[in-house]
Amino acid sequence: MTNKLYNLVIVGYGGMGSYHAKLLKENQTINVIGTFDILEERRTAALADGYKVYESYEAVLSDQDVDLVLIATPNDVHKDIAIKALNANKHVICEKPVTIYSEDLKEIMKVAEVTQRKFVVHQNRRWDKDFLTIKKIYDETIIGKVFHIESRVQGANGIPGDWRHLKAPGGGMLLDWGVHLLDQLLFMVDSKITSVYANLSYVLGDEVDDGFQTIITFENGSTALIEVGTTNFIQLPRWYVKGTAGTAVIDDWSIAGKIVTQNFGVDIEAPKPIQAGQGLTKTMAPPSESAVSTSDLPEVAPTMESFYDNVVSVIEGKAKPIVKNTEVLRVLQLIETIFKAAERNEVIKDFDSYNR
Amino acid sequence: MTNKLYNLVIVGYGGMGSYHAKLLKENQTINVIGTFDILEERRTAALADGYKVYESYEAVLSDQDVDLVLIATPNDVHKDIAIKALNANKHVICEKPVTIYSEDLKEIMKVAEVTQRKFVVHQNRRWDKDFLTIKKIYDETIIGKVFHIESRVQGANGIPGDWRHLKAPGGGMLLDWGVHLLDQLLFMVDSKITSVYANLSYVLGDEVDDGFQTIITFENGSTALIEVGTTNFIQLPRWYVKGTAGTAVIDDWSIAGKIVTQNFGVDIEAPKPIQAGQGLTKTMAPPSESAVSTSDLPEVAPTMESFYDNVVSVIEGKAKPIVKNTEVLRVLQLIETIFKAAERNEVIKDFDSYNR
Repeated sequence: MTNKLYNLVIVGYGGMGSYHAKLLKENQTINVIGTFDILEERRTAALADGYKVYESYEAVLSDQDVDLVLIATPNDVHKDIAIKALNANKHVICEKPVTIYSEDLKEIMKVAEVTQRKFVVHQNRRWDKDFLTIKKIYDETIIGKVFHIESRVQGANGIPGDWRHLKAPGGGMLLDWGVHLLDQLLFMVDSKITSVYANLSYVLGDEVDDGFQTIITFENGSTALIEVGTTNFIQLPRWYVKGTAGTAVIDDWSIAGKIVTQNFGVDIEAPKPIQAGQGLTKTMAPPSESAVSTSDLPEVAPTMESFYDNVVSVIEGKAKPIVKNTEVLRVLQLIETIFKAAERNEVIKDFDSYNR
Repeated sequence: MTNKLYNLVIVGYGGMGSYHAKLLKENQTINVIGTFDILEERRTAALADGYKVYESYEAVLSDQDVDLVLIATPNDVHKDIAIKALNANKHVICEKPVTIYSEDLKEIMKVAEVTQRKFVVHQNRRWDKDFLTIKKIYDETIIGKVFHIESRVQGANGIPGDWRHLKAPGGGMLLDWGVHLLDQLLFMVDSKITSVYANLSYVLGDEVDDGFQTIITFENGSTALIEVGTTNFIQLPRWYVKGTAGTAVIDDWSIAGKIVTQNFGVDIEAPKPIQAGQGLTKTMAPPSESAVSTSDLPEVAPTMESFYDNVVSVIEGKAKPIVKNTEVLRVLQLIETIFKAAERNEVIKDFDSYNR
């Protein structure tokens, strides 16, 4: 590791800003030296938490001691704050969704290129244990070749009563939670998107979507159903994944779940028809005991640097970013396509420029 | 009830034909007097079960003692058998899917009209207890106005190794199980279909679909996700239904499940943020205890005549059919639309002629 200490200022000291402050207390290389927020109550909170409070954003930018700016404001002002920081020779960590529109991210990426500063988006859920477990199952073909992925988060609390329920600052569930689930999906599935269907929900009467279902098809033949809900009083499993040799389920963030796989190469007793409602069914009968095996989810050990350590490694030229801006851009373009698909109620094809 | 005994011949003595024979033993009004099947082994089975075996279909048609013909053959020959029976002055009970193409059903309906004989399709799953439970929740707004319905059957046994895995006789899961789930949906939701998206699965390498997911939107603003799978080693709940005041789940045909509803008009403690993976979330945190109530699924008592009794009532002019041919036709047109939507990978709109 490095000996240099990187001084960071948190811009936007709300829920996420203060969460970063707490997490960074554990970090040996990044040092939170101050905060900036336009709201008086947030300044007071930052002071109470023991942080210096800058009087203006200009004061942050002109402070030569500041190496890094962390942006945790509403989404519509990310771009302006980021570009100013890059031009002031600071590196930038930015909360998700990086911007509301992909064109804005492209502008930021250009400025980062010109100023030779690093701009890294906090797609923290690439490190979620549930996701890493599914990714391991996927990568190691533990249930065979995965051909269908369902990834859901379902809450019952509606949209939070902050800017996230307003359109102008970039609220709504597709931008808030959708960005995580889509980022995870594209980080895992190495294939071009061939089509997108989407259905946004406005049942709460907010001006932004309170959830969505989207079905994404890939060139490699696999499909994904991604869903966010805020009006779900009962939760379906966080992950439901089908492979050519079995199925994997993760129920929730506690990583409860299981894998059921097909037993190949043994003499298998045919399933017995069951009475199901007013009919008999062999098709939907449980497989015979000899036909399947149930096992625990695989254990995952951390193989990636932590997000913050990776930012430092990137700044020092020692590693590539785990969250690449081209990947973040692709997810944002997918989100734009989902909005368009839902608005038009059409399947949208041939939009993904991805070609690894 | 009537005093007349109706004599019925079962055409096609396979799984479903012999199942009808067994069920009709309990029926006081319909009497199975014989069977016809082109396969020697099925004739032998029928004889062993104590039924007369006709030597030809013509012999069935010319037998003046036969009032009713029940068709339980592969789907591609339903039309021919049905029209011959109607023209021979017999009433007809037909297995589902009634025909492969809607034009064929229209032909049958015309002949039934001309001959003044009754033609009734065995959509037996309108009587399934799980469906009747959901229909009660829907009709009585037990979870508020229902705006999203998910109806799934998921097996792990692939497609049965009979004609159902072949294209010509009308195999595949959309026609086999899809017809039930779609029939239930349209029997429950009294609204015009505005659009259909669909994705058929061919992962087993059969010439017919081994499952599908379709998303249907209705004029009344509600949506439905209907799914059939035969490569699912773990099962998601049979029903997952969202209303404006809560969520209902039925796990399986044993009618295990629950309802969780929102408590209105009480002071509700805000949900506490939870650590979920690498982040905090209030949106996806469980609601506070005071915010929701959990209850059992409602009990359902039979309110409809049984399928067979209804057929007799219809023949005697005492009742309207519970399974109306116009409804069966609409479901078949929906299935054709699902095939088209999947093949083109497009959302199809403005096809539903329904206008109650």
